Amino acid sequence: MTRIAILGATGYTALELIKILLRHPGAEIVAVTSRQEGQPPIAMVHPSLTDRLDLRLEDITPAEIAARAECVFSCLPHGASSAVIPHLLAAGTRVVDFSADYRLNDPEVFAQWYGQKHTDPDRLGKVVYGLPELFRSQIPSAQIVANPGCYPTTAILALSPLLKAGLIETSDIIVDAKSGVSGAGRTLKLTTHYPECNESISAYNIGRHRHTPEIDQILSTAAGKPIEVIFTPQLVPMDRGILTTAYARPTGPVSEEQLMQTLAAFYADEPFVRVVEHLPSTKDCALTNYCDITARLVRGRVLTISCIDNLIKGASGAAVQNFNLMFGYPETTAL
Amino acid sequence: MTRIAILGATGYTALELIKILLRHPGAEIVAVTSRQEGQPPIAMVHPSLTDRLDLRLEDITPAEIAARAECVFSCLPHGASSAVIPHLLAAGTRVVDFSADYRLNDPEVFAQWYGQKHTDPDRLGKVVYGLPELFRSQIPSAQIVANPGCYPTTAILALSPLLKAGLIETSDIIVDAKSGVSGAGRTLKLTTHYPECNESISAYNIGRHRHTPEIDQILSTAAGKPIEVIFTPQLVPMDRGILTTAYARPTGPVSEEQLMQTLAAFYADEPFVRVVEHLPSTKDCALTNYCDITARLVRGRVLTISCIDNLIKGASGAAVQNFNLMFGYPETTAL
Amino acid sequence: MTRIAILGATGYTALELIKILLRHPGAEIVAVTSRQEGQPPIAMVHPSLTDRLDLRLEDITPAEIAARAECVFSCLPHGASSAVIPHLLAAGTRVVDFSADYRLNDPEVFAQWYGQKHTDPDRLGKVVYGLPELFRSQIPSAQIVANPGCYPTTAILALSPLLKAGLIETSDIIVDAKSGVSGAGRTLKLTTHYPECNESISAYNIGRHRHTPEIDQILSTAAGKPIEVIFTPQLVPMDRGILTTAYARPTGPVSEEQLMQTLAAFYADEPFVRVVEHLPSTKDCALTNYCDITARLVRGRVLTISCIDNLIKGASGAAVQNFNLMFGYPETTAL
Amino acid sequence: MTRIAILGATGYTALELIKILLRHPGAEIVAVTSRQEGQPPIAMVHPSLTDRLDLRLEDITPAEIAARAECVFSCLPHGASSAVIPHLLAAGTRVVDFSADYRLNDPEVFAQWYGQKHTDPDRLGKVVYGLPELFRSQIPSAQIVANPGCYPTTAILALSPLLKAGLIETSDIIVDAKSGVSGAGRTLKLTTHYPECNESISAYNIGRHRHTPEIDQILSTAAGKPIEVIFTPQLVPMDRGILTTAYARPTGPVSEEQLMQTLAAFYADEPFVRVVEHLPSTKDCALTNYCDITARLVRGRVLTISCIDNLIKGASGAAVQNFNLMFGYPETTAL
Repeated sequence: MTRIAILGATGYTALELIKILLRHPGAEIVAVTSRQEGQPPIAMVHPSLTDRLDLRLEDITPAEIAARAECVFSCLPHGASSAVIPHLLAAGTRVVDFSADYRLNDPEVFAQWYGQKHTDPDRLGKVVYGLPELFRSQIPSAQIVANPGCYPTTAILALSPLLKAGLIETSDIIVDAKSGVSGAGRTLKLTTHYPECNESISAYNIGRHRHTPEIDQILSTAAGKPIEVIFTPQLVPMDRGILTTAYARPTGPVSEEQLMQTLAAFYADEPFVRVVEHLPSTKDCALTNYCDITARLVRGRVLTISCIDNLIKGASGAAVQNFNLMFGYPETTAL
Repeated sequence: MTRIAILGATGYTALELIKILLRHPGAEIVAVTSRQEGQPPIAMVHPSLTDRLDLRLEDITPAEIAARAECVFSCLPHGASSAVIPHLLAAGTRVVDFSADYRLNDPEVFAQWYGQKHTDPDRLGKVVYGLPELFRSQIPSAQIVANPGCYPTTAILALSPLLKAGLIETSDIIVDAKSGVSGAGRTLKLTTHYPECNESISAYNIGRHRHTPEIDQILSTAAGKPIEVIFTPQLVPMDRGILTTAYARPTGPVSEEQLMQTLAAFYADEPFVRVVEHLPSTKDCALTNYCDITARLVRGRVLTISCIDNLIKGASGAAVQNFNLMFGYPETTAL
Repeated sequence: MTRIAILGATGYTALELIKILLRHPGAEIVAVTSRQEGQPPIAMVHPSLTDRLDLRLEDITPAEIAARAECVFSCLPHGASSAVIPHLLAAGTRVVDFSADYRLNDPEVFAQWYGQKHTDPDRLGKVVYGLPELFRSQIPSAQIVANPGCYPTTAILALSPLLKAGLIETSDIIVDAKSGVSGAGRTLKLTTHYPECNESISAYNIGRHRHTPEIDQILSTAAGKPIEVIFTPQLVPMDRGILTTAYARPTGPVSEEQLMQTLAAFYADEPFVRVVEHLPSTKDCALTNYCDITARLVRGRVLTISCIDNLIKGASGAAVQNFNLMFGYPETTAL
Repeated sequence: MTRIAILGATGYTALELIKILLRHPGAEIVAVTSRQEGQPPIAMVHPSLTDRLDLRLEDITPAEIAARAECVFSCLPHGASSAVIPHLLAAGTRVVDFSADYRLNDPEVFAQWYGQKHTDPDRLGKVVYGLPELFRSQIPSAQIVANPGCYPTTAILALSPLLKAGLIETSDIIVDAKSGVSGAGRTLKLTTHYPECNESISAYNIGRHRHTPEIDQILSTAAGKPIEVIFTPQLVPMDRGILTTAYARPTGPVSEEQLMQTLAAFYADEPFVRVVEHLPSTKDCALTNYCDITARLVRGRVLTISCIDNLIKGASGAAVQNFNLMFGYPETTAL
């Protein structure tokens, strides 16, 4: 039984994480933190947890957290996460970080995209990117894992095998992605006010979405060459799910069959990637840790279509997958 | 051509009002007000108005408003509306008030349900309730009209004819109502944050919703006897529309046919009430000024089902209907 | 390990049942049936089952089913279910029936509401109604369990404790219920075509919905007196969830606290009923086997508000709860 | 007053067309046709038309139609439309055709994409493509206008000005488009059954959507060079709206400002195209005849984002815009 603390427990990824951990035979949630006043029971903040988790929100120090928990899931926003994690690591606690703070290797890139100086720059480049499909071997021994962003998960899982196989060019990659509204979090904003975003689709943060350098970095690693993608995030009126359509130029003559076989071979042993013949719907993956991927060849251009549940494979499911690898549970436990 | 000012122009009812007035041959919008900083163009606040209304939001005094406009639509919240309206009336301006400030006759009842003392109590009881189907004759000459609430419109239009005909008891009336989310306004709240209210239905404000005394008052007038309804508002994941199912006991033997004939006769000449045989959907009325009504007799109990678009017949369409009556335009103009 | 067959596996309740059983340590799905041509893999009909259940749909005889399975979940429609179940029972197979075929005690009532003569009338009245909260003791030894309807579950769980305690009258009970669209099944109909029912709410089958006699029967049993409810089903634009607001007259002076305490005491030991202080949202129960219930006293009238996920506690979750009781698994297994 | 017949009046584009024409001072609807049995009143098929249009569906011959109407809007599917239109034209009736039958110039291309031989091939290439923004001058005198497809409208309006200005390459154009469900029509299909497509997004018909050759043809005309786009249609859970994100390579150094100025200049006098600085939402155009367009430069790639209401500017609004031009009404009448 592993004692777990969840930092920043009032948001959607934390709620989803709790629901998964409640059915995990090896997980015991011992603390849920928030700066919210009054230390309400967590079920007051998340009514769906009524009678399921009898804990109050607490505002406690890293030392107190480390004293209680062996594993910390940090659902804090970027900046806040890296303010507390060094203390936890120093105390010997293991960490799965949902924020972007330890995903990028280069403090300069972080500063450029996040508009602030990284406060723990020396650790950058030494933290494993928690996508088991690409970096599984480094996860079991890691003290800290940077849990991937939701959009990057769809783009990276779809494109990496084709890049590694040298089937697509590294330039001119377009990632056109569509996400459900839960991806925007629980903080109130006009853009996610129901009558504003319901029955409407729109693009946002074009050219400056912070998942861009993350996709760049991991795809560059896969390709062994620098990649800069064109990334277009779009907001879709649904709770959860991301569908990503990516476009790339083939390096040479290639058939749709080859593309599919390359994907299928790459993920043959993966428990959570399904290479499918049909065009997947986000609903097929909803509430699961699956990523569904297919590929098409259209007028000489390679297309990949991939989808996930942004709160599961795009956040909390991936985090538990990492947790399972870190603590020696079967990788699919509770997923 | 009537010069019009709209107070509190950043919300949904104001937006809807503007869209209607833009196709009204007799309406000229001369001012849109808000306390919002910086006097942005209204199209920045409502992007759908781009290229359609070239005005900036202004924060101007009642005197300035009265100097410019012959008719004021006040989309201000309760309390704020009655703070400015007396000044407008004193200056000779005519007013359609969207707030609840002048709907109730009794300042005590207002204080009890709205939790504040009315600041213009002497006027209460002298303002016409702007439901033309019941009070048309008083509207053309009125200087101020209290535009009805959205829920009350559905309940009152469905039940009044049956009460007036003495077909249903005045006690034990239940009004079970379901509204789309735009009814909750544009102010950010957790309950109307997309991932909270999407794919979910819930009741709210049971026993204390402020439309209760309004329904009571108008139905009591219709019946000539005091009525206190049981009113249950519920929030439905859709932008617009209210469906109200009301339950009443018949005063004596009655057939479904009689109920329907009573409704049909009562509304025979009404341009915006459709007494329909089928069970109406809110979508049938969406974006229109119609109220669809039907009645059923189930195991000896009378049921009425009525629906409207809460932003049109439940707010801005009704307001323009009143405006048309006040200023001598054909009642259906622009509707 | 219990060998399970699922009849009528192409619909939503079957899909949901499969998803639950896939995480049940004691369940082995050995057959999924359908009259669909060509015996496609079930994952072609339900793409979300890709890589999760490697079975083909089969059109096999009751004898073949009985030879393979110890337990049959019948997701067939009414009429079709009672055509096959007698054969299964004769062969010694145990059955959880999702249809309405064995819920009613009286063949006359069945014929009246379902418009067809019951083909297995002698068994009616001898089959336990599979609501463990009321009839748990009869389930473990039952060879067949009639799984409750979705609407009835919400009404019965909310009202039974108050009727048993004699707190509410047996006459004049109103059940105003709102359901998500999955409740209408997977058969194509104009009313559930997306652009028809999206962004709209409407009532349907008023006075003739087939869940009416089922609610009547079980509430009458609870009260020890005949009850005939006014039942109004309404279709809400969301995938899943039922919210039921019921109205009843108190038998004498009663406080809201008494109502709540009666409910809380009745369900004190129930794993899947949560008596909550707040007004519940269907989303709180979504994807769970919970029923959330609260009560209010409004102007002398008793209100209960209850909600469930119609596909889980209203169908497949309840079925697995019954299965667990029948086969000696802990009642909450996989739920 | 122009006498109008609408062929195939049971679908969504016909309903939308009727609603627009009902507020058109010069339009009189004299016939609505359908092969539906029993000639029901149109309000039985479209309840929202109750009390608004008192016509029955009729199954009448082209000769009868031509005898009654000066203008025919054909909302028939492809193939069916070209079976009747030659008779109408021979009789001197003018036609706005919603189908794809007269949009393509080349019968071979039609046969290839629509899988059937064109039955009126000689007329192809002589029918004006009814996009006034590009072909206005040919519309007033046209006897028949091919009303554009919904997806093509968004792609063509966004890209044509940049192609005409020589700012983007003609190769490697990607059109990633997302549509609401009404675009799939009113015919029942599993993919548009509410619980299937709600809360889900998916791509469909990749590489073989029939709007592809239409986009190719008009963009090729604009560019003066053959263009073959990569077109990806995707289904979004909302009633109406299309958002299209297109990607193109610039022909040389270009700034975002230049792109925007080119668009703004091109559409300076257009009543229904708004070149906007912000990233538009489909909701901004909902229920209007506007197309909102913006452009961005991302990492050296040109992006256009454009959106419309697929039922208005993408179908019935455009049809009325064409009708206005054909019959000498002000172009914006009723729009």
